[in-house]
Amino acid sequence: MGKGKLYGIGVGPGDTELLTLKAAKILEKVPVICAPRASNEKESIALSIVQPIIDKRADRKKVMIVAPIFPMKKDIENLKRHWMEASIIIADYLNSGRDVAFVTLGDPSIFSTFTYVQKNLETNYEIEVVPGITSFTACAASIKKPLVEKNEILTIVPKIDERLNDILSHGDCFVIMKASRNSKKVEKIIKKDPREKTITSVQNCTQENEKIIDGFSKEKPYLTTTIVKFDEE
Amino acid sequence: MGKGKLYGIGVGPGDTELLTLKAAKILEKVPVICAPRASNEKESIALSIVQPIIDKRADRKKVMIVAPIFPMKKDIENLKRHWMEASIIIADYLNSGRDVAFVTLGDPSIFSTFTYVQKNLETNYEIEVVPGITSFTACAASIKKPLVEKNEILTIVPKIDERLNDILSHGDCFVIMKASRNSKKVEKIIKKDPREKTITSVQNCTQENEKIIDGFSKEKPYLTTTIVKFDEE
Repeated sequence: MGKGKLYGIGVGPGDTELLTLKAAKILEKVPVICAPRASNEKESIALSIVQPIIDKRADRKKVMIVAPIFPMKKDIENLKRHWMEASIIIADYLNSGRDVAFVTLGDPSIFSTFTYVQKNLETNYEIEVVPGITSFTACAASIKKPLVEKNEILTIVPKIDERLNDILSHGDCFVIMKASRNSKKVEKIIKKDPREKTITSVQNCTQENEKIIDGFSKEKPYLTTTIVKFDEE
Repeated sequence: MGKGKLYGIGVGPGDTELLTLKAAKILEKVPVICAPRASNEKESIALSIVQPIIDKRADRKKVMIVAPIFPMKKDIENLKRHWMEASIIIADYLNSGRDVAFVTLGDPSIFSTFTYVQKNLETNYEIEVVPGITSFTACAASIKKPLVEKNEILTIVPKIDERLNDILSHGDCFVIMKASRNSKKVEKIIKKDPREKTITSVQNCTQENEKIIDGFSKEKPYLTTTIVKFDEE
């Protein structure tokens, strides 16, 4: 019996309808779905996005759901242990000949938990990566404004630190992911830039509780994206 | 009779399977599909991506396909005239109460022809933007390497000019779109950066003639994306 194949599937920002046809087809037939979550108390957001697809399967009761914990912590050694544990569980299923779909919010190549599992398993297993809708293009769609046009430069920043000071003058549009974590600091850096700008934040993009905010978000939910667009000169 | 609604639909990089469920549902029922093309001699790539969806429709013979020309030229006044002409054609259909789906390669918010039509029509018509898979995350999926992880910064550059000199030291991963147009110049700028790096180019990503190249592409097809990833320090 051959080994199973590992799919890294981007499930998009929240709305099940933003799954790709390809992702939906894989999720309609794969025997094992692996959906990381932040803690024992929290549901996996990626799993909740694909749940309607699973619920429609005739064999839904036989689908194996694995929900390893990938804590949102900074202790890198502890994180590595969690990633390795999850990789070993996935490898067990692959060794038994079953395909595994690892579902990840947004796209698997942009700040994704899938990256760590992929690095652990890519030498020994066949892997296929299925791209997903990124949160920032979904946010742009929600606010109905383009991110970049013509010769503009787009920069995606995962969190705020002193680097924003250095890069701000070199770009036309900045996407700040997980922006709610440090918004005072970002605000200060961005307001220093003398160019005319539009700042918009989107919370829980494409989900039922989506909220569009002029400027920065004062609340602290995990899924906030801020778009800073400088006007054309 | 009410006015029709305009959908700006990102159709992804090339593979029809990378349409979202939402995009496919709209394209299964909308009476008018607008698909821009570069010249009279060229087929619309966006149209070719959605054609399998149209072909499955029972009413496919009644679907109105509009293919305005959006030339790839730099003469801005001439371009504006073409965009306005296309917008007027679309407005005619909307005024007659018909919904129109404008299909655009990749995502409608990133260097998309849809932006110009949107700006002409957004004041007077209801518009819904449906995000699509961007070429750069599809390229990353094809080469099975992440673009960014942890605290890395991702920058998307539409074409090469002296700005790349200024921004290169401030980022960890650079995506150069339409990279084949000026690859000698890019190579020179990037090789000057002393950091260890991996350079990969993808031609016609997710299409049948997809080609992955180590380094820069020496050929000149339109749809080439180059990913420059600097190693972690």
